[in-house]
Amino acid sequence: MSYSKDTLDRIFHPGSVAIVGASDNLFKMGHRCVLSLVEIGFEGQIYPINNKVDSICGLRTYPTLMGAPGDVDLVIIVVPATYVPEALRVAAKKHAAGAVIITAGFKEIEDRTGAALQTEITRIADGAGIKIIGPNTFGMVNIGAKLNASFTPPFSHLKSGTISMLGQSGGVCHLVGFQAIDEGVGMNKIVGLGNRCNLGFPELIDYVGDDPETRTIILYLEGIEEPRAFMEAARRVMRRKPIVGLKVGQSDAASRAVQSHTGSLSGKYGLYYSAFEQAGIVPAYDTVELLDIAKILNIAPRPGGNKVAVMSFQAGPGIMLTDLCVSHGLEMAQFSGETVNGLKELWPDLTIRCNPVDLAFVSDMDVFGKAAKLVLEDANVDAVIVFYLDVMSFFTAAISEQLIPLATQAAKPIVLCVNFPVKLSTPETEQGLARFHENGIAVYPLPERAVKALKGLVRRAEIERTFR
Amino acid sequence: MSYSKDTLDRIFHPGSVAIVGASDNLFKMGHRCVLSLVEIGFEGQIYPINNKVDSICGLRTYPTLMGAPGDVDLVIIVVPATYVPEALRVAAKKHAAGAVIITAGFKEIEDRTGAALQTEITRIADGAGIKIIGPNTFGMVNIGAKLNASFTPPFSHLKSGTISMLGQSGGVCHLVGFQAIDEGVGMNKIVGLGNRCNLGFPELIDYVGDDPETRTIILYLEGIEEPRAFMEAARRVMRRKPIVGLKVGQSDAASRAVQSHTGSLSGKYGLYYSAFEQAGIVPAYDTVELLDIAKILNIAPRPGGNKVAVMSFQAGPGIMLTDLCVSHGLEMAQFSGETVNGLKELWPDLTIRCNPVDLAFVSDMDVFGKAAKLVLEDANVDAVIVFYLDVMSFFTAAISEQLIPLATQAAKPIVLCVNFPVKLSTPETEQGLARFHENGIAVYPLPERAVKALKGLVRRAEIERTFR
Repeated sequence: MSYSKDTLDRIFHPGSVAIVGASDNLFKMGHRCVLSLVEIGFEGQIYPINNKVDSICGLRTYPTLMGAPGDVDLVIIVVPATYVPEALRVAAKKHAAGAVIITAGFKEIEDRTGAALQTEITRIADGAGIKIIGPNTFGMVNIGAKLNASFTPPFSHLKSGTISMLGQSGGVCHLVGFQAIDEGVGMNKIVGLGNRCNLGFPELIDYVGDDPETRTIILYLEGIEEPRAFMEAARRVMRRKPIVGLKVGQSDAASRAVQSHTGSLSGKYGLYYSAFEQAGIVPAYDTVELLDIAKILNIAPRPGGNKVAVMSFQAGPGIMLTDLCVSHGLEMAQFSGETVNGLKELWPDLTIRCNPVDLAFVSDMDVFGKAAKLVLEDANVDAVIVFYLDVMSFFTAAISEQLIPLATQAAKPIVLCVNFPVKLSTPETEQGLARFHENGIAVYPLPERAVKALKGLVRRAEIERTFR
Repeated sequence: MSYSKDTLDRIFHPGSVAIVGASDNLFKMGHRCVLSLVEIGFEGQIYPINNKVDSICGLRTYPTLMGAPGDVDLVIIVVPATYVPEALRVAAKKHAAGAVIITAGFKEIEDRTGAALQTEITRIADGAGIKIIGPNTFGMVNIGAKLNASFTPPFSHLKSGTISMLGQSGGVCHLVGFQAIDEGVGMNKIVGLGNRCNLGFPELIDYVGDDPETRTIILYLEGIEEPRAFMEAARRVMRRKPIVGLKVGQSDAASRAVQSHTGSLSGKYGLYYSAFEQAGIVPAYDTVELLDIAKILNIAPRPGGNKVAVMSFQAGPGIMLTDLCVSHGLEMAQFSGETVNGLKELWPDLTIRCNPVDLAFVSDMDVFGKAAKLVLEDANVDAVIVFYLDVMSFFTAAISEQLIPLATQAAKPIVLCVNFPVKLSTPETEQGLARFHENGIAVYPLPERAVKALKGLVRRAEIERTFR
């Protein structure tokens, strides 16, 4: 095994966590790290290390890490950079498996003392068999294990699911994680790799690849030093699990900024996307697309090709979806004569409008169901996008009654694009949308998001055919 | 004057509104139209026309339109197409100024009876001096006048503001309107033009151009028949007010769908965007961009050029913003020596990272304020984008304390990109963000949205310089 599975298991499922640099000052990261563990309801032992106050967030503190009871599986370090080596030495004595080093000021700063310090902590960690997440990271979460080892208490509100993210930027992990909170997308692990001392993408890709709790993997890259190992790990894992990736650093200015962020060379942007293609990683180009694609890869059946049928209860968005399909390299399906005739029978009064199918005049949901069945069963159709505005709460229930039985029979993906004011949404709508999701139908609020997600799914299906 | 100002004033500020086809069946449009007027708190007279029930939504009904008391300014028509001519004839007798005809089945259907019916209703309306909004429309709203003359009660929750939208698709008007509700963007009028019998883009553009309640105009086009009049109206109005436009129908399949939607020829997509350029209309390519650009055009000072400074409290999103600026044709500003030295003095310990400015190590907000001032005052900088994650509610307050005084002094736009889980947001954050907006700082949750909005603002500034 090319990675330390047992060590990583102890890190992601720790029995005990110590916070070196725990603070009772609400504005300090050392406070928020304690709060994160408390808010998610971590069920193991939490040892806030602080020699000035007796308790933090209602938890008893310990003046020193050495003084904490017994061994410690995971140590979160939030003290200034120069104190990190000593903290790691004590962590070694406490037989820690891992250290989440949130502290910055290592390889990413141009002052050489930073790089020297990073070399030193890596040496200490390697000597003790400790794996470091970071330094210069927001931390990590493992929602399935109720572990929020980060400086971000709101991550405790993430819904537990089967998508895991490995990211080189805390900020970007937050964009994805916050979207997951708002849209109820279930996540398993989110790991901010930071400067990567002795734990990088290859090992973590293999780990989540073998992780029974992870079904789909998100990668966010700025620049990596070990392209070969990265490619090998991705190639191994993508056969079993979908991987979707985003790389930044396209412009020169961004590329320079990458270097000063995590001390990595950004490399040629285009080369990364070529590498994604070779390694069977589905490409994404912004954070919304990243999560949107992961969401559909996680649940939807694979389309046999790129021919899409659009069915819309509102004509304008149907037209937008059509434009978007074409501009994103999907094809608008040509319906068979049988489908066209079948649709004409359903709407005898109106001239049948082929793909996109305009449902504006359809008030009888059975008629919609029959039309959707005809379209789904057409051999020229690989995937169907359905659009509607949810302006009346019964609508989602009525649509799901028709679509869910079809989705469970069909081996083709149905993508739902449903728009409504989220502020005014009802529990009926939210429950209805969750039901779609449970039945393999991914739901998006905007045409552009639905189409980009479907494009990602089409790409993944190609990858699965190629590497079958 | 090329349009009927008095008539349109009566339509958008009616003293009385009748609903022909009002219903007590919750699932019918004729019910939702009554509900829309009630929910927004329309202060004029409402006459639901229905000869079967005594009251609808607590309002007294009238068996016939003719039997409603006195004259009626605006008639909303939701009866089947074949009954529309008669409803219009009665409306004429009641001296109506306008009719919102929600009913479909006119020029947009391929059956020629539809086109004939549309010719007939146009003739009746023209004879009576009635202007028709529609047919085949969701209706219209004028939030400033507490008028929701549409089948969409949720539009009653729109915040009153100074952005008005003229759209050829009800569905697309809903995408924009629902976003405005969720994000608290103030709207004035939203008009679904539908099939356009005797009221089209040119007249309405001139009307909102002269409208003291409208500061910024959004257009959504599928296809128009009167390109010259459209261009002339747009050219007249864009000198006084910013216009942002979206056109669909790029692909052949979408183009065919346009024709069957509102009976318009879609025309060449590219030609429309060339026309936008000539007419000084800022282009947008999806509905989110449409509202995002309108929002910034409505409040922000104009940049002198396209040179952007990015300042980010999180490095990854700062890098993403940099990539996005460059890929959208904006330039990353080269700071002057003075600015670089000033920033170095603020962060003596760290090597200064120039544009994008990484604020990851900045905990003292005064230091941020000084840095922002230096960057804003640099003659090489035309606009500044600031990014932060709002993970602690005090952060937005602290940032606004620094930025708002600078924004009110500077003649340069500041764009704020702030991300947080909306579901967990606090009143402090919401109020803080509203305060930014009141001070000319547009706020967006995602890097791609912030950059596209700023690009639109840069384009508008060019237009203003060109047509000064």
